[in-house]
Amino acid sequence: MVLLSGGLDSSTCLAMAREQGFVCHALTVTYGQRHQVELDAARRVAAALGATEHKEIAVDLGLFGGSALTDDIEVPKGRSEADISHGIPVTYVPARNTVFLSLALAWAEALDASDIFIGVNALDYSGYPDCRPEFIMAFENLANLATAMATEQGRRIRVHAPLIRMSKAQIIQAGLALGLDYGLTHSCYDPLGDGRPCGACDSCLLRAKGFAEAGITDPLWGP
Amino acid sequence: MVLLSGGLDSSTCLAMAREQGFVCHALTVTYGQRHQVELDAARRVAAALGATEHKEIAVDLGLFGGSALTDDIEVPKGRSEADISHGIPVTYVPARNTVFLSLALAWAEALDASDIFIGVNALDYSGYPDCRPEFIMAFENLANLATAMATEQGRRIRVHAPLIRMSKAQIIQAGLALGLDYGLTHSCYDPLGDGRPCGACDSCLLRAKGFAEAGITDPLWGP
Repeated sequence: MVLLSGGLDSSTCLAMAREQGFVCHALTVTYGQRHQVELDAARRVAAALGATEHKEIAVDLGLFGGSALTDDIEVPKGRSEADISHGIPVTYVPARNTVFLSLALAWAEALDASDIFIGVNALDYSGYPDCRPEFIMAFENLANLATAMATEQGRRIRVHAPLIRMSKAQIIQAGLALGLDYGLTHSCYDPLGDGRPCGACDSCLLRAKGFAEAGITDPLWGP
Repeated sequence: MVLLSGGLDSSTCLAMAREQGFVCHALTVTYGQRHQVELDAARRVAAALGATEHKEIAVDLGLFGGSALTDDIEVPKGRSEADISHGIPVTYVPARNTVFLSLALAWAEALDASDIFIGVNALDYSGYPDCRPEFIMAFENLANLATAMATEQGRRIRVHAPLIRMSKAQIIQAGLALGLDYGLTHSCYDPLGDGRPCGACDSCLLRAKGFAEAGITDPLWGP
């Protein structure tokens, strides 16, 4: 079970799960976000990486408010690396990864699958509480108490977060080594009307920095 | 933040939260279940108990399959008390309470609310892993690692499960003492075409047993 947004991180995570020999079921959660173009990217990536199955589930977290990604709050542009790396930005979606992992767990249990992959990264967004290793460990602990699969059948559920301590450049290099075409992925929080990335939101800036540090041209921006 | 299905347990839980002085926001999760009449009950109960706000959020857990409550699997009828109390029935929905609590946490964080109420009960359904005290404690632990409210502002999130060790009769007596009209609630897994309870599913049987033990006539079935 691989959570797949169609962004750079989750796409690399799917490539890694496949490399480890897992039969991959990809789950995309649509949560009322404004970057609908990510969903097209998720479909392209799932197909390109040979996911056995790709499901999309809708849950309108915008109903609760509290985030620039679901509300009419402006997405910040052109922030410095220091600003991006510290504190919780307005693009934080309350309890998002908890909701994502719980939905992945629901499908995993229905499939009798005991391995869940999530492409969270603790370095880029040190301010996001639900991207830290202790959060992932707490969810794994919960999953093993929450499901009949674990409590009745003694299956041990594992939550894999292979990118959690990697830099963006390392993630990109790992994905390229696995043959991932980053031209299929999409990372922007606030794409232009024609679907192209804005180039100035936190997500675009982190992506650009990652490609620069890896010494590689981002195929989204072309040579 | 009170999870409210419109059933006997969650309605009593809402009455208890109000009694404790909380300003109550009620959340009903519609998850593709067949018992749509429960939703009407949730609206009636939220209004009758003076919830400040009542939201409904849809998430189609039927997409994943694996339960008689979301699939075309037959709901078992006329089971013995021993059968109901042991093992995991086909009405179990994979990871349901994990999904419910994660959605409650998302709204709670958006509202800056630190208390979440859920009407789970460990006695009636000893086979449901996500109704046990250790599950609730693990979710509370997760919530305090998952949210900016807890990690940045030092708010302690509490997950209250006041019914967890009560018998159905005790729950009914507690609700009546708080003025709850159980005629507004609805518990059946497989209601008749006109919305009346079937009287034979596990949920109807447990409800009937609870009223019988409390020595009270269920207003749903009339005097």
